[in-house]
Amino acid sequence: MVRVPSTALPGHAGETVTVAGWIHRRRLLKSVAFLILRDAAGLAQVVVTDPAVRARIEELPEETVVEVVGTVVANPAAPAGVEVTEPAVRVLGEPAVPPPFDLYRPELTASLPTQLDHAAVALRHPTRSAALRVSAAAVAGFRATLDALGFVEVQTPKIVASATESGANVFALDYFGRPAYLAQSPQFYKQLMVGVFERVYEVGPVFRAEPHDTTRHLAQYTSLDVELGFVADHRDVMAVLREVLAGMAAEVARRAGGALAGLGAELPAVPAEIPAVHFTEALAIAGAPADEPDLAPAHERALGEWARERYGSEFLFVTGYPMAKRPFYTHPDPARPGHSNGFDLLFRGVELVTGGQRLHRYADYVAALADRGEPIEPYASYVDAFRHGMPPHGGFAIGLERFVSRVTGAANVREVTAFPRDLQRLTP
Amino acid sequence: MVRVPSTALPGHAGETVTVAGWIHRRRLLKSVAFLILRDAAGLAQVVVTDPAVRARIEELPEETVVEVVGTVVANPAAPAGVEVTEPAVRVLGEPAVPPPFDLYRPELTASLPTQLDHAAVALRHPTRSAALRVSAAAVAGFRATLDALGFVEVQTPKIVASATESGANVFALDYFGRPAYLAQSPQFYKQLMVGVFERVYEVGPVFRAEPHDTTRHLAQYTSLDVELGFVADHRDVMAVLREVLAGMAAEVARRAGGALAGLGAELPAVPAEIPAVHFTEALAIAGAPADEPDLAPAHERALGEWARERYGSEFLFVTGYPMAKRPFYTHPDPARPGHSNGFDLLFRGVELVTGGQRLHRYADYVAALADRGEPIEPYASYVDAFRHGMPPHGGFAIGLERFVSRVTGAANVREVTAFPRDLQRLTP
Repeated sequence: MVRVPSTALPGHAGETVTVAGWIHRRRLLKSVAFLILRDAAGLAQVVVTDPAVRARIEELPEETVVEVVGTVVANPAAPAGVEVTEPAVRVLGEPAVPPPFDLYRPELTASLPTQLDHAAVALRHPTRSAALRVSAAAVAGFRATLDALGFVEVQTPKIVASATESGANVFALDYFGRPAYLAQSPQFYKQLMVGVFERVYEVGPVFRAEPHDTTRHLAQYTSLDVELGFVADHRDVMAVLREVLAGMAAEVARRAGGALAGLGAELPAVPAEIPAVHFTEALAIAGAPADEPDLAPAHERALGEWARERYGSEFLFVTGYPMAKRPFYTHPDPARPGHSNGFDLLFRGVELVTGGQRLHRYADYVAALADRGEPIEPYASYVDAFRHGMPPHGGFAIGLERFVSRVTGAANVREVTAFPRDLQRLTP
Repeated sequence: MVRVPSTALPGHAGETVTVAGWIHRRRLLKSVAFLILRDAAGLAQVVVTDPAVRARIEELPEETVVEVVGTVVANPAAPAGVEVTEPAVRVLGEPAVPPPFDLYRPELTASLPTQLDHAAVALRHPTRSAALRVSAAAVAGFRATLDALGFVEVQTPKIVASATESGANVFALDYFGRPAYLAQSPQFYKQLMVGVFERVYEVGPVFRAEPHDTTRHLAQYTSLDVELGFVADHRDVMAVLREVLAGMAAEVARRAGGALAGLGAELPAVPAEIPAVHFTEALAIAGAPADEPDLAPAHERALGEWARERYGSEFLFVTGYPMAKRPFYTHPDPARPGHSNGFDLLFRGVELVTGGQRLHRYADYVAALADRGEPIEPYASYVDAFRHGMPPHGGFAIGLERFVSRVTGAANVREVTAFPRDLQRLTP
C-alpha cells in the first residue's frame, strides 16, 4: 500500500491508508491512547483502543520508527481534522532509545552545546529543521534568480596552493607531501571564470580557521558567490544583488513559508531599490569620527535604524569603503582614489554581504600587490590570467548561515547549521 | 546603450547597438577587416572599413576585451545572417597578451597539461566551456528532479574527525591543533539527515588522496549525493536514481543542448525501466569465474555491450554485490546474506553510480564493525544516532565529472573539470 504523508490525510477520509514515521509522542489515557506520528510533512494523530495494540505501543519509546495501517476518520477535534483509527502498528527497525531531550515539546530545552552534541536527533525538532528548510529554499532562490539572469554555475577547487586573501585564519594540509590550504573563498576562481562565462555563481563550502569563539563565525560555512563581467562599476553588481535577495526571499516564502512562520519569523521586504550611502556619509549618520577607517558593529546598528526610519528599509548599502580596509583586488573609485568601489550590504543593522568591483587590468594587480608589500609569486596563476583580457567585473558573497540566522532571528549561527564546525567542535 | 548579446543581433537589424566581448579573431584582408567578437552567447562578425579603426584593431591582439558600437546589417553571407558595420571600438581594460595557444581554432591543439596549466584561458575555448555548461545543466536537472520528489538539500561538514569509509586515501589537516580529515563523502551525514527530512540530497566537493594518476580519478570532485528513507529495499533507491538520470539528461538537453551538439556528443536515452542483473548473473554474462568477488573493467565493458544488444540500453544495474566488497554500512540481502542490497549502475560499460540500501539498526552497525575487526569509537557519533530510530533507507552518489566525461565522450575527466586537482596538480 502506498504511504500517505501526514499532511495528505484529510484527502483520504474513509479510506484505509498506510502512514509511517517516528513516534513523536504517546498519550496514554485511561480509555484510549493517542500516538502522534511525525513524518517529514508534519504530524498525524493515531487513535488506539485495541488493548493489544495499546500494549505494544506502551513498549515503544518516542522516536521509534513505525508503519501504521488504519482508517482515516474525520474528527474536527483532531489536529488536522482527521485521525487514523483501528491501527495496525509495525516497527520498522527496532524500538528507539529515547533521545537525551524531548523532541515533542514546543521548544528544545537542552542547551545549544547539548543539542549540537546530539545534532542527529536535535535537528528533528521542528525549530531546528525549519531553519534548514529556510536554508535550502534560500539557496534554491539564489540559483533560480541567477539562472534566469544568464549566470552559469561553477565548481572550483577547495584545496589551493596559497591563502586566498591573507595568510591568516587558513587551514593547512598535507597535499601528497606538499603544503596546501583549504580555500577561504572561491574569489580568484570565480573572477577567472568571468573570462569564460561572463557571469558565474558558486554555492560551496569555504573554510576559515577562526580563532575566535563567537556567535557568528564558523570554521566552515556555505558561501553563495557571484561574479559578473561587463559592469560599469559596483552599482551593476549591487543591482544584481538586489534581484538575488528578492529571489531568495520569494523562494523562502514559496517553499518554506510554513517553516518560517513556525519560527515566528517574518521575511524582509526587499525594496525595489535598496538605499545606498557613501562610507563617509555613513560615518556621519552613525556619529562616528570622520577619520574612522571602518564601521564598528554599533555604527552598523545605528545605520540599520536610520535606514528603517528614513527609508522603511531593512537593507542598506554602504559604498565607498576605504581602500585600506578592502582586499588588494578591489577596484578604487576613480573619482576618490582613497575610497573603493567596494560595498557592504547591511541587513537589520548587521553586515550581510560584502562585494564590489574588482581590478581587471594586469598592471593594476601588480601595482596593488606592490603597494601592500606583497609578493606576486603566491598569486601568479591568478594574476597572470589578467594579461589575457578580462572585462571590468565585480561580485559579492553571501554567507548562507548568516543570512538564515538573520532571517529566522537565530541568536547563534550554529542554530541554523546542521553540523557546525568551530574552534571546539569537530564532531558529530 | 544596453549591450546586445551576439546571438540576439539578428533581431536588431538596422539598429545601432553595443556589443562587447573578446576579440576572438581578426581577419585583415586588403580592402576590409573582420573582427570576430566572442561573448558568452557566441560570436559576432564586425566589419571594419574605416582605416583609422582598422589601424587600431591591428594593435589589439586576440583576447583583448572590447566594446563595439555599430550598425547591424543583414548579410546572408555572415555567420549569423547579420554583421555589425561602421564600428566604433573601445578597449575595456588593456590590450591582451596573446594566450599561449590559439583559441579561435576549432580544436585546442595544446596538450592537456598545457591547457590545464593555463586553465583560465583554455576554458574559454568552446570545447572546454561546453563541457562545463553540460555540467551546470546536469546539476540543475539533478536538483530539479529531487526537489519535485520532496527531497531537501543539505550542506554537511567537509572537515571530519575520522575517515569516512577507511583510513586510506584521506587528506589529513591540522584543525586548531587537532588531527582532522577532509571528508571522502557525505555518507554518514546524509544518512543522519534522513532522520530529519526523510529524503535529502547534497551537491558538494569530496576529497580523495588518490595515489594513482589515472584518466578517471581526481583528488577533489563534485559528488551528487542522495539518501532516502522508508524504502522497502534497494530497488526503491534505484527507481529514484532512474528519475534523477532522466531529469539530468532532460535538463542538459534543455539548457546545454547546443553545447553538447558542439562537442559532437549525444545524450543517452534513459529507459523507463533500467535493466538490472544480479551480480552472479553478471559474472556469467561477462564470462568471469563464478567466484570472482568484483567486476573488472573488462567485465563491465562486456556487460555494457550485453545491455545494449539485449535491451537497447546504455544503462545497466548490477545488484547484489558481495558484502565483502561493500562498505560496512551496506545492508545485506536478507535472502542471500553473502550478497548485499548494494548496486552499481553501469553506463556505456563503465561504473557511473554506486548505491544501495544501508543498515538502519544500531545492533547491525555494531555487528558489522565487529565482523570487520573495526573499532566503533571512530564512528561513535554516527553509529550512536541509529539508537534513536532510523527508517530503512538507502541512497547513491553520482560523480559529476565522471558523469559529464561519459556524456561528452571526454577521454579524461580533467577535460570536464575547471581547475582539476590531482597527484601532480595543485594550481591554478
